[in-house]
Amino acid sequence: MTKKVKPRLSRGLRDLLPDQMLARQWMIDKVRGVYELYGFAPLATPAIEYLDVLRGSAGEEAQGSIFRVTNKEEEELGLRFDLTVPLARVFAQYQQELPRPFRRYQVASVWRGDKPDKGRYREFTQFDLDSVGVAPEIADTEIVAGMCDSLAALGVERYRVRFSSRALLTLLLEHAEIAAERAAGVFRVLDKLDKIGAEKVRRELTTGYRDQSGDIIEGLGLTAAQVDRIEAFLAIREASRAAVIAALRELFRGLPGADETIDSVARISGHLAALGYGDDQVALDLSIARGLAYYTGPVFEAVLLDAPQFGSVFGGGRYDDLVTRFTGQPVPAVGASMGVDRLLAALTHLGKVDDRKSTSQVLVTRMDRDLTRDYLQLTWELRRAGVPAELFLGKPGSVGKQLKYADRMGIPLAILFGSNEKEAGVVTVKDLDAGRRQAASVESRAEWLHQRPGQLEVQRSDLVAKVREILDAV
Amino acid sequence: MTKKVKPRLSRGLRDLLPDQMLARQWMIDKVRGVYELYGFAPLATPAIEYLDVLRGSAGEEAQGSIFRVTNKEEEELGLRFDLTVPLARVFAQYQQELPRPFRRYQVASVWRGDKPDKGRYREFTQFDLDSVGVAPEIADTEIVAGMCDSLAALGVERYRVRFSSRALLTLLLEHAEIAAERAAGVFRVLDKLDKIGAEKVRRELTTGYRDQSGDIIEGLGLTAAQVDRIEAFLAIREASRAAVIAALRELFRGLPGADETIDSVARISGHLAALGYGDDQVALDLSIARGLAYYTGPVFEAVLLDAPQFGSVFGGGRYDDLVTRFTGQPVPAVGASMGVDRLLAALTHLGKVDDRKSTSQVLVTRMDRDLTRDYLQLTWELRRAGVPAELFLGKPGSVGKQLKYADRMGIPLAILFGSNEKEAGVVTVKDLDAGRRQAASVESRAEWLHQRPGQLEVQRSDLVAKVREILDAV
Repeated sequence: MTKKVKPRLSRGLRDLLPDQMLARQWMIDKVRGVYELYGFAPLATPAIEYLDVLRGSAGEEAQGSIFRVTNKEEEELGLRFDLTVPLARVFAQYQQELPRPFRRYQVASVWRGDKPDKGRYREFTQFDLDSVGVAPEIADTEIVAGMCDSLAALGVERYRVRFSSRALLTLLLEHAEIAAERAAGVFRVLDKLDKIGAEKVRRELTTGYRDQSGDIIEGLGLTAAQVDRIEAFLAIREASRAAVIAALRELFRGLPGADETIDSVARISGHLAALGYGDDQVALDLSIARGLAYYTGPVFEAVLLDAPQFGSVFGGGRYDDLVTRFTGQPVPAVGASMGVDRLLAALTHLGKVDDRKSTSQVLVTRMDRDLTRDYLQLTWELRRAGVPAELFLGKPGSVGKQLKYADRMGIPLAILFGSNEKEAGVVTVKDLDAGRRQAASVESRAEWLHQRPGQLEVQRSDLVAKVREILDAV
Repeated sequence: MTKKVKPRLSRGLRDLLPDQMLARQWMIDKVRGVYELYGFAPLATPAIEYLDVLRGSAGEEAQGSIFRVTNKEEEELGLRFDLTVPLARVFAQYQQELPRPFRRYQVASVWRGDKPDKGRYREFTQFDLDSVGVAPEIADTEIVAGMCDSLAALGVERYRVRFSSRALLTLLLEHAEIAAERAAGVFRVLDKLDKIGAEKVRRELTTGYRDQSGDIIEGLGLTAAQVDRIEAFLAIREASRAAVIAALRELFRGLPGADETIDSVARISGHLAALGYGDDQVALDLSIARGLAYYTGPVFEAVLLDAPQFGSVFGGGRYDDLVTRFTGQPVPAVGASMGVDRLLAALTHLGKVDDRKSTSQVLVTRMDRDLTRDYLQLTWELRRAGVPAELFLGKPGSVGKQLKYADRMGIPLAILFGSNEKEAGVVTVKDLDAGRRQAASVESRAEWLHQRPGQLEVQRSDLVAKVREILDAV
């Protein structure tokens, strides 16, 4: 016998035990159902890509954290850090074979060697939805609607998809007479608005300031008039999309290109309205930015209004330069990515997720070795009728121990069957939930024994029908 | 603009485009449905494990082909090469939290840096089903039944699960008076039976021989009497499990331990019979071995009788030393692994797999820009009624081009809607399959134009009902 190996995982990695996996699968199946109803088709790509394929693409911040992989041929390989880069590679690689538009979803692990933190893992799941090679506005509308329908399918009553457009920010730069090459710097400061407040943002955009620790924050040197125009833009916070659009038309009146840009945003908003997605569900919010270097048009994100602390659970937008790196040609594309871990955490917080540890609905207990065949037959009878059932496979021991197992696994019903039952042609069905409720209302042990809470004797031939009836009632 | 990157994959890796993924998901969903009906629960583990966890475990042949991974901390890591080693680690690591029995399924990628070959990839999917910490025979029975039910759920009419037991081979060694330490050598030669034939096997077990290329194959030095006993064992090829068991009782009569071992095999066979799994579905086949170093009891494999060239599509058995490497204690376990790629290839060969490229059932075409809102509404109306529908998102162009897209994607129905239809309150539904069939029977183009094969005008308000009716009829 060789030395014992310690069972453990490297930091930032984790196992998903059955209770976590059941919740995750439920969520993924629901969202997959919506995407397939929309006619998106699944794609899978390998975890391992060439390093030069992974590098130099849009998701710059993820580049430094690529897990390196080596094969026998000693090639330069790495694990994918998102699903967008592989999509771009696939679209470029199979241009002749793939239909245009290419509308795909992909749910898969990605790896980033960042510093692990609470809720931040080095391997995590992304669930992406993208349309490549597609017309604007209708495609954008569909992605936003898909986000809404996914959240609704998961039982979220109050959510909000916020959208804006990179093109509106370009208009703002022109309106405020800020050179395009200064855009990145200006947006970096504006992104801090929630964190440091309007006054400090203003000072950083103009003359700079000295912060609490005495450090000097340099200013960007914009004029007061320029900052006034930025503030006027950000001050547009009307509740209805139509009102925001009207305010934008007013603000950018006479600016070249303003009409086309605002018309495009208005078309998305109008399409959504025609499909019944009102202002409660989708807001035009000029403060959202979402990594602007990456996106080229509309940007979207979704939050749960009853769990805002979890941040945005969906993010996306239009990125027309997706495939350019491989083909030299721009290809229009729009998509969204669901944060599986974050959304699941939020849904769990909201009590929308079942706390199940097992797929079984019924545990068939084993009380008597001589009745093994009967136990097998009872179990298969239920399974063949479509009722998920489990025969207790541990050491038989006491029935109490087996019921404890059912309880621990969250299995709602148990079947008890001994030689007495066999003779009488009956089966005892124990409703563990009802049993718990009834037992709490019983005063003495004698009474408890007499009543045997949650227990029910049914005819052997009625078993499946009775089990179904109890399960349907839950 | 930086240099263009060539879109490509390292050898042995592959993308699964939508048609392949749809078939694969259909298969995985079906089998998952069976496993969940059995009350098995899902588990996920990270792709990356410590090298010492991966190494030195049972699957020796896979050790040399581990993909190495490096992180910032420069730890010794690798990608998992199977799902059994991670299961063993999980069971050892969460002993206190996990229920006993622990019955889990896992479907996930594994990586092996072997020489790539036709149908042999460096990243491939395994779908494992295991019960850990469980009683014998009932648990083994359940795994065999699960293999049968999975194949039946996939529409396979003729399959056979073959099973045997490592314990029977131990009896054979005693019966033939062969020392236990010679077992591995003897079984290695017996494994070649199909390949080199009985005569060469006999010679290799005894005196050796010179092969066609003149090389000397050394013999193991068994006596003729010993080989006779081995051959008598392998000659047991009765069609019914009961007859094989009777022949074994006869062959091993009086051998110590023979009764217990044969009783155990007979119980599995009897349990299966009691559940309706007859000799057609499950055979007791003494010739199967399945990597004996790994297994400690019964072994199983499944073949499709109408596609035997694909080999075994399921393999498994009992391996009670699974967790020992981590805990020092043996833990009883039994399981099976489905070869996803191989089974899918076999099902495709048998015509059991739909050739779909899309999840859509209906394509809403765009003929008139002014009717965009109508097209959106038609699409969402179908989706909200649960009919997977797609609005054509490519450049509008001709309807012909859009119908060609539907045809290419395997979408059966298309919706045509122009200003004439709008005025009349109707929608044209085009049944592309019916259209193809009808068009083939039409003689002239004039006739074709007149008949417009496969086209059907329906009232706008009847659209969903009519579409459902046509789809249900297919």
